[in-house]
Amino acid sequence: MRVLILGSGFAGLNAAKVFGGVKGLEVIIIDQKNYHLFQPLLYQVAAAALSPAEIAVPIRNIFSRHHNIKVFQGKVHTINADTKSVFTNVGEFKYNYLIVACGARHYYFGNEAWEENAPGLKTIEQAVEIRRRVLTAFENAETENDIDKQIKLLTFIIVGGGSTGVELAGALAELSRFTFAKDFRNIDTKRTRILLIEAGPRILPNFSEKLSLRANHHLEKLGVQVLTFKKVTKIDADGVNVGDERIEAATVLWAAGIKASGLNQQLRGELDSMGRIVVEPDLSLKHYPEIFVAGDQAHFSHQTGKPLHGIAPVALQQGRFIAKNILKELEGKPRETFHYIDKGQLATIGRNKAVLEIGRLKLGGFLAWMVWLFIHIYYLIGFKNKFVVLFQWASSYLTYQKGARLIVDHDWRFYEKR
Amino acid sequence: MRVLILGSGFAGLNAAKVFGGVKGLEVIIIDQKNYHLFQPLLYQVAAAALSPAEIAVPIRNIFSRHHNIKVFQGKVHTINADTKSVFTNVGEFKYNYLIVACGARHYYFGNEAWEENAPGLKTIEQAVEIRRRVLTAFENAETENDIDKQIKLLTFIIVGGGSTGVELAGALAELSRFTFAKDFRNIDTKRTRILLIEAGPRILPNFSEKLSLRANHHLEKLGVQVLTFKKVTKIDADGVNVGDERIEAATVLWAAGIKASGLNQQLRGELDSMGRIVVEPDLSLKHYPEIFVAGDQAHFSHQTGKPLHGIAPVALQQGRFIAKNILKELEGKPRETFHYIDKGQLATIGRNKAVLEIGRLKLGGFLAWMVWLFIHIYYLIGFKNKFVVLFQWASSYLTYQKGARLIVDHDWRFYEKR
Repeated sequence: MRVLILGSGFAGLNAAKVFGGVKGLEVIIIDQKNYHLFQPLLYQVAAAALSPAEIAVPIRNIFSRHHNIKVFQGKVHTINADTKSVFTNVGEFKYNYLIVACGARHYYFGNEAWEENAPGLKTIEQAVEIRRRVLTAFENAETENDIDKQIKLLTFIIVGGGSTGVELAGALAELSRFTFAKDFRNIDTKRTRILLIEAGPRILPNFSEKLSLRANHHLEKLGVQVLTFKKVTKIDADGVNVGDERIEAATVLWAAGIKASGLNQQLRGELDSMGRIVVEPDLSLKHYPEIFVAGDQAHFSHQTGKPLHGIAPVALQQGRFIAKNILKELEGKPRETFHYIDKGQLATIGRNKAVLEIGRLKLGGFLAWMVWLFIHIYYLIGFKNKFVVLFQWASSYLTYQKGARLIVDHDWRFYEKR
Repeated sequence: MRVLILGSGFAGLNAAKVFGGVKGLEVIIIDQKNYHLFQPLLYQVAAAALSPAEIAVPIRNIFSRHHNIKVFQGKVHTINADTKSVFTNVGEFKYNYLIVACGARHYYFGNEAWEENAPGLKTIEQAVEIRRRVLTAFENAETENDIDKQIKLLTFIIVGGGSTGVELAGALAELSRFTFAKDFRNIDTKRTRILLIEAGPRILPNFSEKLSLRANHHLEKLGVQVLTFKKVTKIDADGVNVGDERIEAATVLWAAGIKASGLNQQLRGELDSMGRIVVEPDLSLKHYPEIFVAGDQAHFSHQTGKPLHGIAPVALQQGRFIAKNILKELEGKPRETFHYIDKGQLATIGRNKAVLEIGRLKLGGFLAWMVWLFIHIYYLIGFKNKFVVLFQWASSYLTYQKGARLIVDHDWRFYEKR
């Protein structure tokens, strides 16, 4: 009996954990990366606060004790649901059950050429690229004598006012206002312009209006300009067009759209506008009960009529639920239907503010930030990471310094580039 | 009065520190990178033990309190010693005193095309590339069914038996024997073949013969095969030629040669075979007393008749000495001549062995390793780095785990590569 798990995000990882040590069950995890990434803190890598390794753990190391779990680094090419087979660059894998949990990627609504000038934030590589661009902009501003060019270098535009955009904007504001305050001689980093552009009526649309306003207030106190009802119509190497207005900026970051993994297009089923596949109440596919889809790839709206958000607690609960359901079925018991236990939503703004919403509880400010802090430490995998990240945060909180202000080049070669 | 410092390695950084807060003196540091790199621990980044940010500190942050010190990230194009001017990609800089300390790069003795298949270890980018190759080789071996290909994937060749080669070999052995022991299912990582190839009669030629033998013994106990008197004649994507013998290997690392920065060729003066410029007893240039050269770029043999080694304590003392001499001259006092105070040499082998040589004192094994450990922690810049690195080491020592087992891709783009 073999369960194949595609993807080791929160869904895949937590499914596999349930299977650990189950006799007679072979579990194979396939992921393009060799690590599980703690996505909620990825923006802190982009903002030079944390190192990649502090929020990423080798998948095979997590399961080193469970000999029934195998991990392969590979890329899935096709899924043949009729023959129950998955084809990858490292070979073909047959399965009895398949859990598809490859997450989502950033999406430009048809303007994919914008990527070069406005990287998204879904991978370690992208986070390091954003860090490189942000730090380089300040370095270049320091050596620039032309005032207009300096202003352009010190203008940062973040497109998209969801959690990622808000957290990035807050982190950049903190970087420019506090961390860099005494480090530059020719520029006043406190004059850095950070624009958060949102097409809709308000930032954090998934939160209540009250908290959305509160986040807005926190951001503006940090010096971030929040523009709502503004649609970006063009992005190039020198800035963005917002409606009729042109804003010159050396750094543009994309946090506006995501789309579920393209694998969904290979699975027979209805896709929503974000590319998520509509799943049954037990998270399986209508035509293939042995295939389950979880996390950002799944459109599950059986509970409230609206699809669940693409956040870590949803993916985590779904992964765990699917695995338990499979074990139940193997014991001859009937499957259950998925029910999400609302763990709330959180977004942090700068060094000590956050907004938090758990059911009817709505919280903002410092207290919400403390909750944010402990939840994120709690869910980080590995004692070492928990400890190092907590230390980095404490140290950053006390000294305003950031732990990873490194500009890393793309090319490692010395001789070829000459 | 302006002092221009090219490079912020141990020499440049420690020169600048002396100048910090000196009134009437403007100091400009130019470096291609935005950070000072603690080179002696770079091999630990390559071996997935430390994160880049743990051994690199932003230069401008080190000098944030000293307003007479400016830092520019830039690349030096030319030095015009006659007009006392340095041209860079971020403008021209005039100087009264110039300190040239750009270090050395790895060197292939005319076979620069070998770089693609045998990266050197002088930069963060190269360390991350080596880490990527090493970790990927194990991942690929796990998915490989052909035994010959598996053996090739699990063969690692390190060319060059100096400190870097020895430390890399020890770290890879530790990784394969201990860290990976329980993480793979299809391969036995303890069978990993690690070859250290040295053209000369023994490894660690800068150390005494006794310690060299001891290091050899430590390495062999860890499973490293040490080949001496063997000259690599060819490196390609599939392995190396050693004399008449062909060894297939997926991963080849280069630790055999270094060459001083090419800037030396722009300075009038005698160059030795490693591209180092022969300096006067006060580390200045014969024809330009206002130009000083320090660290790996300098050939200083006035003390013992033999040039000083390219190690951190030499660079550190030279940088400090030059700065003090300049200050003396500005006070109207005569210059002094440089005298190196021997701080000894150290190399570590695997998780708890090292060799150490300070003057007549020769030490090996665990005690030498303890000394190595504390010296490296002591000289690491920043309390945060000291603490995090010590924690990483303690944790790694107790659990055999490594802190940064991340395979990071070259490309951050999602859409362009499709």
